[in-house]
Amino acid sequence: MIAEPVMYTRINDTHLEALRGLAGAENVTTAQAMLDLHNRDASRHPAGNAEAVIFATDAEQVSRVMAYCNEHRIPVTPWGVGTSLEGNPLARFGGISFSFERMTAIVKVHADDFQVTVQPGIGHKDLNAQLARYGLFFPPDPGANATVGGMLANNAAGIRTVKYGATKDNVLKMQVVLADGRIISVGSRSIKQSSGYDLLHLFVGSEGTLGIITEATLKLVPVPSLMSSVVASFPSVEAAVEAVVAVRGSGLDPAALEFIDARQSALLRDHNGVDLEEAPTLFMEFHAVLPEALDFGLAQVKEICEELGATRIKTTTDNAERAKLWSARHHAFELLQRLHPGQEIYIGDVAVPISAYPDLIGFAEHAIAEAGIKAFMKGHAGDGNIHCEFPFKDEAEFARASHVNDMIVQKAIELGGTATGEHGVGVGKVRHMIREHGASLDVMRQIKYTLDPNGILNPGKIFPE
Amino acid sequence: MIAEPVMYTRINDTHLEALRGLAGAENVTTAQAMLDLHNRDASRHPAGNAEAVIFATDAEQVSRVMAYCNEHRIPVTPWGVGTSLEGNPLARFGGISFSFERMTAIVKVHADDFQVTVQPGIGHKDLNAQLARYGLFFPPDPGANATVGGMLANNAAGIRTVKYGATKDNVLKMQVVLADGRIISVGSRSIKQSSGYDLLHLFVGSEGTLGIITEATLKLVPVPSLMSSVVASFPSVEAAVEAVVAVRGSGLDPAALEFIDARQSALLRDHNGVDLEEAPTLFMEFHAVLPEALDFGLAQVKEICEELGATRIKTTTDNAERAKLWSARHHAFELLQRLHPGQEIYIGDVAVPISAYPDLIGFAEHAIAEAGIKAFMKGHAGDGNIHCEFPFKDEAEFARASHVNDMIVQKAIELGGTATGEHGVGVGKVRHMIREHGASLDVMRQIKYTLDPNGILNPGKIFPE
Repeated sequence: MIAEPVMYTRINDTHLEALRGLAGAENVTTAQAMLDLHNRDASRHPAGNAEAVIFATDAEQVSRVMAYCNEHRIPVTPWGVGTSLEGNPLARFGGISFSFERMTAIVKVHADDFQVTVQPGIGHKDLNAQLARYGLFFPPDPGANATVGGMLANNAAGIRTVKYGATKDNVLKMQVVLADGRIISVGSRSIKQSSGYDLLHLFVGSEGTLGIITEATLKLVPVPSLMSSVVASFPSVEAAVEAVVAVRGSGLDPAALEFIDARQSALLRDHNGVDLEEAPTLFMEFHAVLPEALDFGLAQVKEICEELGATRIKTTTDNAERAKLWSARHHAFELLQRLHPGQEIYIGDVAVPISAYPDLIGFAEHAIAEAGIKAFMKGHAGDGNIHCEFPFKDEAEFARASHVNDMIVQKAIELGGTATGEHGVGVGKVRHMIREHGASLDVMRQIKYTLDPNGILNPGKIFPE
Repeated sequence: MIAEPVMYTRINDTHLEALRGLAGAENVTTAQAMLDLHNRDASRHPAGNAEAVIFATDAEQVSRVMAYCNEHRIPVTPWGVGTSLEGNPLARFGGISFSFERMTAIVKVHADDFQVTVQPGIGHKDLNAQLARYGLFFPPDPGANATVGGMLANNAAGIRTVKYGATKDNVLKMQVVLADGRIISVGSRSIKQSSGYDLLHLFVGSEGTLGIITEATLKLVPVPSLMSSVVASFPSVEAAVEAVVAVRGSGLDPAALEFIDARQSALLRDHNGVDLEEAPTLFMEFHAVLPEALDFGLAQVKEICEELGATRIKTTTDNAERAKLWSARHHAFELLQRLHPGQEIYIGDVAVPISAYPDLIGFAEHAIAEAGIKAFMKGHAGDGNIHCEFPFKDEAEFARASHVNDMIVQKAIELGGTATGEHGVGVGKVRHMIREHGASLDVMRQIKYTLDPNGILNPGKIFPE
């Protein structure tokens, strides 16, 4: 059932000539600068080794390229804009980096349906800027201006997932090109469909290993009319994460519920001028239609935080103040980079059921302290998702960080969680897949082999070799 | 790639003896009354022809039975409680009806996580009765007391889907037994997971053709503290469905948004004593935490309905009154059956994007009038889902109803919709699958063949032969 090890073809001049014919000469390049650009993402993983970059223009062109590459066993790795954190779009076996940066059109706004159909190369921030005039937005927000195609391929999430769901929850329909060049449509613009297998969600999150997304219809939601923010500091990590569980359990439906540890808090205060204590801190956002509902929610949240011993609670319904606060939270990672010049930062991404969050965080704190290494924790706490960020300056430090992170991953899986809440498997999480999925990984392999028997789509990702 | 036509094995005494050994003698029966019970669902489709009924007790037993049946090419058709409307759980090629009516346990309530883990045979109403003490409920409600396993297999929906989603949106994790007896776990209790392929949603809605669900962890939501109902009558179908689009577009987030036509309205008035006009009518429900929010919502809805010429708008926040109203709506189908003694009723189930709903309803009205047949329309309008119900007394009448329904299905697909919003494909919708899915139906077949190469799981469903 399982694919034999595949021998891939190196691209030669004959292939390039053929590919120029199929893709348009202006869309094929082997310029070193372009290769370099497409062989790096935002992670610390080794550079990719794509031999040519092809710019996608439309599904038919993608189909022609795929059929040719499939016939000639040339690997194809789809590329959005390189904001990924696990080497997800980096070629590991040569071949083509298939770039979608020229397919950025909004195909159609279906305003009455709260839907938009887009090409995959559009950045979600650019999309939302254009949707503002309709009073609608596409809620998943991974921070960076990732492309919609990359977000779909990776099932990206971010700070609003606690209310609006991950990317997989905000897509209805896609056009997909298969490894052999077949163009198919999956899902439906009807929000209700019980017709046949859910292929839509099979392709979402498959990281370009099953097919290439060439168009997507996304769900939109109305821009909320009223928003409030709450920032609360706690005497201990335990108290902060208990507050997370309590807020989630209260039915208050936060639109964001973020945790940062004391170190991270101090950095934001000292370097970004954010009014924070050096203490475990929660950032929350609430959306409402009525002022009464907003006030009611704030009162409840304050009560929860006070009961759990919060040392400081700050609330605001002022938009400018709220924007500044969230901007600081969004730029926390950049700040960390700036404060560790010449170092890289390894980022973990585990998630667990919310009731297990205190256990997970306690374990991580202990493991980091035991190892005597430096790490910062921040996370989408409302989702049970935590990122441990480990700055490192050499291989020895990296090895220690990686070891601690592996322990945290193992703990998360034991607690009923996952090795990756939102960054995807890519290269970095491959080694955890057997532990996390057991026998169902074989089923994933069977499906991979069925849809891509020559293994040309983004080889070396998701599955351990 | 595609499976050759399969020859299935008829069950003989040797098989039965072996199956009694594998499943427990007390769990295997060939009693005619039991066969009859398991060869009928709530639809008009021809009876099934299962040769034996096996009662599932646990995943390991299911695994043993599956491995044996796979080896011997004996078809296996999973069975919940027979409330399906498209012959979904009826054996068409003999073999075993695998009944889950004895696997009804709640395995664990994860109250802090708003989750519950159950065996598949539990009815969703029975589950919710037991969850009441936690102030939580499992929202999908298809009307009948369907089993959770059947709801998952079918991706059932119902009146609350407009707010809470269909069954597929309310499940996190499942244990599944494959055709060859492998037991796998798919999904995660972590609400966030970007790890590998989404096998969970591949099995949900696959109608028992890819694997058998033996356990599921479901999402729960808090029982709403405040509810209101609105019933509004309109001078025309067009006005009513325009109100549906307007309410959806207003961001009011109704918890139910149901449409019934004038005929159906008159029946409920004349025979169930519901205070209604003989006019196209909308039933709505809203949930809120604050009385102010409830009042605000009601005021907005009234304004929308008045602007669209509603002849009568009745609102209530009284729980008893609300319950009576919804009970009438829920029993509308039974009433239709009672008023057509000796007749059967054929039910359509198309759904479209909400903006296309007026077009669809207009088309259906016209097609029904043109054909000169009797039909009643009611639907989950907020989801763009409509059920045309055709009473018929003989084959000739059935043929006319079926022809009109086919026209409506074709129109729904042209409008970007689906042949089935919530009843599933089963036997009845098979003939629409090529039109609806095109080339992606081939991909579904490839996956079916990969996971069930001998075609023993619920053969004859979903795919045209």
